[in-house]
Amino acid sequence: MSSKNRLLFKYISAIYLNMFITIICTGTELLTGSINTDDAFICEKLNSIGLSVNRVITVGDSISDIKNAFREALNVSDMVFTVGGLGPTFDDLTRDAVADVLQARLVFNREVMHKIAAYFAQRGLSMPEVNDRQAYIIEGAVVMDNKIGTAPGMFLEREAGGHRKIIVLLPGPPREMNPMVENFILPLLRKRFENRIMKAVTLHICGLTESAVFEKIREVVESERKMEGNLLSFTILASIKKIDLRLTGSGDDELLLDNMIHKAKSELYERLKEDIYGEDSETLEEIIAKIMCKKKITLSVAESCTGGIISSMITDVPGSSLYFRQGFVAYSNEAKIKTLKVSENTLKKYGAVSPETAGEMAAGVRNLCETDIGLATTGIAGPAGGTEKKPVGLVFVAISKENGTVAKQFNFGGNRADIKTKVAWAALDMLRRNV
Amino acid sequence: MSSKNRLLFKYISAIYLNMFITIICTGTELLTGSINTDDAFICEKLNSIGLSVNRVITVGDSISDIKNAFREALNVSDMVFTVGGLGPTFDDLTRDAVADVLQARLVFNREVMHKIAAYFAQRGLSMPEVNDRQAYIIEGAVVMDNKIGTAPGMFLEREAGGHRKIIVLLPGPPREMNPMVENFILPLLRKRFENRIMKAVTLHICGLTESAVFEKIREVVESERKMEGNLLSFTILASIKKIDLRLTGSGDDELLLDNMIHKAKSELYERLKEDIYGEDSETLEEIIAKIMCKKKITLSVAESCTGGIISSMITDVPGSSLYFRQGFVAYSNEAKIKTLKVSENTLKKYGAVSPETAGEMAAGVRNLCETDIGLATTGIAGPAGGTEKKPVGLVFVAISKENGTVAKQFNFGGNRADIKTKVAWAALDMLRRNV
Repeated sequence: MSSKNRLLFKYISAIYLNMFITIICTGTELLTGSINTDDAFICEKLNSIGLSVNRVITVGDSISDIKNAFREALNVSDMVFTVGGLGPTFDDLTRDAVADVLQARLVFNREVMHKIAAYFAQRGLSMPEVNDRQAYIIEGAVVMDNKIGTAPGMFLEREAGGHRKIIVLLPGPPREMNPMVENFILPLLRKRFENRIMKAVTLHICGLTESAVFEKIREVVESERKMEGNLLSFTILASIKKIDLRLTGSGDDELLLDNMIHKAKSELYERLKEDIYGEDSETLEEIIAKIMCKKKITLSVAESCTGGIISSMITDVPGSSLYFRQGFVAYSNEAKIKTLKVSENTLKKYGAVSPETAGEMAAGVRNLCETDIGLATTGIAGPAGGTEKKPVGLVFVAISKENGTVAKQFNFGGNRADIKTKVAWAALDMLRRNV
Repeated sequence: MSSKNRLLFKYISAIYLNMFITIICTGTELLTGSINTDDAFICEKLNSIGLSVNRVITVGDSISDIKNAFREALNVSDMVFTVGGLGPTFDDLTRDAVADVLQARLVFNREVMHKIAAYFAQRGLSMPEVNDRQAYIIEGAVVMDNKIGTAPGMFLEREAGGHRKIIVLLPGPPREMNPMVENFILPLLRKRFENRIMKAVTLHICGLTESAVFEKIREVVESERKMEGNLLSFTILASIKKIDLRLTGSGDDELLLDNMIHKAKSELYERLKEDIYGEDSETLEEIIAKIMCKKKITLSVAESCTGGIISSMITDVPGSSLYFRQGFVAYSNEAKIKTLKVSENTLKKYGAVSPETAGEMAAGVRNLCETDIGLATTGIAGPAGGTEKKPVGLVFVAISKENGTVAKQFNFGGNRADIKTKVAWAALDMLRRNV
């Protein structure tokens, strides 16, 4: 992250409620190389209602490690989330660890027991004895139903150190955890802090560098936006795919906050225009699908250096078959000539990585599939294959339409996977801008 | 993770040295929805030399949050790694936080300063004043060179609470951090604990369910493997892609450990045979590339439900163009008929998702590209498109060779992305087994 980007973070901390929030993730697999996404999900969801997480702790399936982490977290936090360890087996220990630290009993809950039994009955299975454990709930906890699995979530409030603290126990599998956060925790927290209104919107940007985005919007994000205790702040988050610009408003006057966000958004759109491709949960692939379907435009794709990743992204959107006719991965010159009808002469004269070849690939795939648009990529993804004149990262993306074909040059850095990803995003962005 | 899988974890903790290791990741972006992979990398690398991480803590760019986390970690840990916050700007605070907690001075290091200046000079830039900060090193620390960026890493040892503790400060960007861990930290730790030898090997398995793997190898992993204080343990890690089986040996007799690992490996290979596709850092795509190149076999791929992801995986391997001729993403019936020469009659009679269509796609792509093998996928990735007879997750993978075509049925669960990934892995696994 550049220093410019980091600078923006100072704005965000100021606006959040003065609360310390900790997430504890449990699971030995998380400490042996598995990538965890649960914490990122909760962070993002809490951010969306203006709450920020201060600390994430990951521990293995050890009762003492979980207890120590939970005890320490409870001491310093206003809100503690635990994720994982609510399963039925002997090494699902979060429930016991939390109960122990809180000096609370685990109480048998008939209703939960019936739900777990029903879960097995629906699948034509008898309920294993080990699952009995899951019907024991920490005294005083509100149960959150698990629609997918057997582990119920729990929501508790406890007086500790003179403060009222919120404790949330969530199951580890994202499919079980995510709905509890979205359908139970978020509405509840939103209501809890309703005298304090929080609003957030994220704008997604691609086709510009981080510094270019910053230069364009500097005036907007550096101006103080405060009205009668209502405050608006900005955060930039950059990845190799895109740049997210998050606006977070916090205060007590919803109408005023809406107006402030609306005004700031207008100023940002005025400066960034079509560099903004979507908002909040919208993905680039979805935006393209929407435009294509609305305009009734069909597409075919010819990929060389991207090797199929563009087609894969496009088909990640359900219903993409409505506009996406066909994709070709034409890695070899032979495939480019035979299938896409790129002329041998072009390949000889300009090489496979050239605007000319990219253009003929795009036109070729468009003709072959009889689509409105042909999109093509060719480049050097590395690590080998680069020369002084055509280094690793040199890429051409071409778009062919009825009225002609354009090719654009890019020079990307990074490893092979980075370059593939960057080209795919650049190509889809170019497509979006040229439809 | 199933309970069977979890059961295996009990073996692993027993063998590790009695050490508590904490990783502290810093960066506000990690608490606003970004996925962190630094901690997983370090966990995995330490695992490879038989060390296990007990706790990972993530905090934002706040000096008090970093100091508190570091102080607490140092209290309970034998080894503390910090990741991130070594950059030049005012919110890169790890260096200061650690120095403050250790009550150590930051000392100007002329050699580091020269290296930073050289970094900028090589790029034809003058060194910004803010980078001066990076030349200040915590008193007594060993400097780890940064070959990619300007932030030097640091390695310290300190007496605390009557114990000698290791403290490692690493930069956040993986490209800068990873070489320091691999080239400096691992050899150093390996040497440090050389009277205690640790050996690890990971076997990669696909094409079997986790429980099937467990049933096959139960006897091996449940037998105690201890010889004169040398101990061997097993861990299973399952994902939707593959199953990893890790053997970790720990003791003081290298020859004995090698023999124990060799014996256990032989027993596992005997039971799992070709279900094991590779070891340690080998990927499925690489293994396929190796086989294909060795046997001089060429491949073409026709993808329907996988939408390009198989071609993308294949072309992730540098040099894949040697055997991979061409890929087709034939989503629509029209594309299947026109390009791949699937007969209209087959599509009408059996439907697009059928062994017949899969087979004709595979044979069609093989003929079209004149390759030794044609690989094809067709299925219902969802969320829509499923019927009672052909539900979401029903998939056919076909392989066409000179001597005939075979199609195999799969029924996968999960969301659209899960199903796409599972089909891609199943197809590549089927390819591997049928070459």
